[in-house]
Amino acid sequence: MIRINVIGSGNVAHHLIRALLQLEKSQPQWQLQQVMARRAKQLPHELPAEKHIDDIALWKTADLCLVAVSDDAITAVTEQIKQEDLLVAHTSGSQPMKAIATGLRRAVFYPLQTFSIQKPVDFKTVPLCLEAETQSDLALLKSLAMALSEKVYNIDSQQRKALHVAAVFACNFVNHMYHLSAEICEQEKVPFEVLLPLIEETAAKVKALHPADAQTGPARRNDKKTLKAHVDFLQDEKKRDLYQLLTHSIQEHVKKL
Amino acid sequence: MIRINVIGSGNVAHHLIRALLQLEKSQPQWQLQQVMARRAKQLPHELPAEKHIDDIALWKTADLCLVAVSDDAITAVTEQIKQEDLLVAHTSGSQPMKAIATGLRRAVFYPLQTFSIQKPVDFKTVPLCLEAETQSDLALLKSLAMALSEKVYNIDSQQRKALHVAAVFACNFVNHMYHLSAEICEQEKVPFEVLLPLIEETAAKVKALHPADAQTGPARRNDKKTLKAHVDFLQDEKKRDLYQLLTHSIQEHVKKL
Repeated sequence: MIRINVIGSGNVAHHLIRALLQLEKSQPQWQLQQVMARRAKQLPHELPAEKHIDDIALWKTADLCLVAVSDDAITAVTEQIKQEDLLVAHTSGSQPMKAIATGLRRAVFYPLQTFSIQKPVDFKTVPLCLEAETQSDLALLKSLAMALSEKVYNIDSQQRKALHVAAVFACNFVNHMYHLSAEICEQEKVPFEVLLPLIEETAAKVKALHPADAQTGPARRNDKKTLKAHVDFLQDEKKRDLYQLLTHSIQEHVKKL
Repeated sequence: MIRINVIGSGNVAHHLIRALLQLEKSQPQWQLQQVMARRAKQLPHELPAEKHIDDIALWKTADLCLVAVSDDAITAVTEQIKQEDLLVAHTSGSQPMKAIATGLRRAVFYPLQTFSIQKPVDFKTVPLCLEAETQSDLALLKSLAMALSEKVYNIDSQQRKALHVAAVFACNFVNHMYHLSAEICEQEKVPFEVLLPLIEETAAKVKALHPADAQTGPARRNDKKTLKAHVDFLQDEKKRDLYQLLTHSIQEHVKKL
């Protein structure tokens, strides 16, 4: 039996705890033993009260600890762990493995997904990016990861850094484009929902085509008349500047093809 | 019976013709009578050869003509239609209704989706944005649209202009973000597929949440340490500038909340 302690109660911890509770039902060799969290409020309702601790003094010996706290807190939180030589993995995309305090077996267990507490996530589809100091620790993490998800990757710290930046472009900046798009719709009282099938198809397309080949639209075609009409339409200077900059960037990329 | 002639053989024409051929099988009151296209190469294979014409002299009297040609060609192409007072709808998001030649009953039948010939599209999910000069023409277009798709909207020319710009943000610029993201992955030899579930979830999230509420990440949290690490990581000046500009734009929007 592998006893897992989790530290944290944020978005990632919330979904990870739910996935672990689900897992121990079907594969009881994996036991979610304790969740250490100062605030119980954001913890999933299905977590049995006796598994929640808010004081490190109540810590029970574990085989693995998953630390899902904010990036800045990883070092301070892991310094409090008194169980020597424990395997401890943080869940951050941006922090190096060595953010974990010394005296522990360090590892990373990074779920690459956008988590919000209000939206359920199918953990089976969440890519889990793993790193560990030894092959045997990596093997243990990998067997847990494969029990939780169908998508498991070995990703070293440098690759994870790249992935994290790439994820900002593919998620946060993409969502910001949706936001600007919604503002343009609201201004002319067009329901944003008209754009949802386009948004879905644009995301679906890159499963089959490289984004370079999936590109369409006036910038790609260098349709000067439409580009000018769009710039003229955009009254808001910031949106207009972004429009021109991104159009230019698309055209620079088209040239390279 | 409503006889429909289509002009064009590009991406939109291709998918529209396929949808119309499908429709006439189940609802024979709608007849795809002729497709006028100079190049037969891009036409769907299932189009019977006798329905394809490449000379306007072979035109048969129709009840409705759908013009799916490039924006710049709409006026010239519709000037060739000799059937007086025919109901003619173009399929462009950016052109006004009056781009259609005089002497015809003008309308717009704009399918708001990203079409590539190599990727099949479920036409039932394609939003169709309609405009016409008279209520009776609008009613005819609407009954066709509702037979083809579950998403039909009345959108006037000004709203369509906004939608078209909004679609550039939500599709072309989004796809460009995917492209930049893929380049960052390629540079560190991380497979881009690791990001696909994140891309899918980011798109799915805005079905349930407004993009303002769906935003996550270092810009949203104003996580200065991570923002700095990302900027330091980006060696390519253009990507770095875009990163800073989009981060700034997200933070300006967060302030407004």
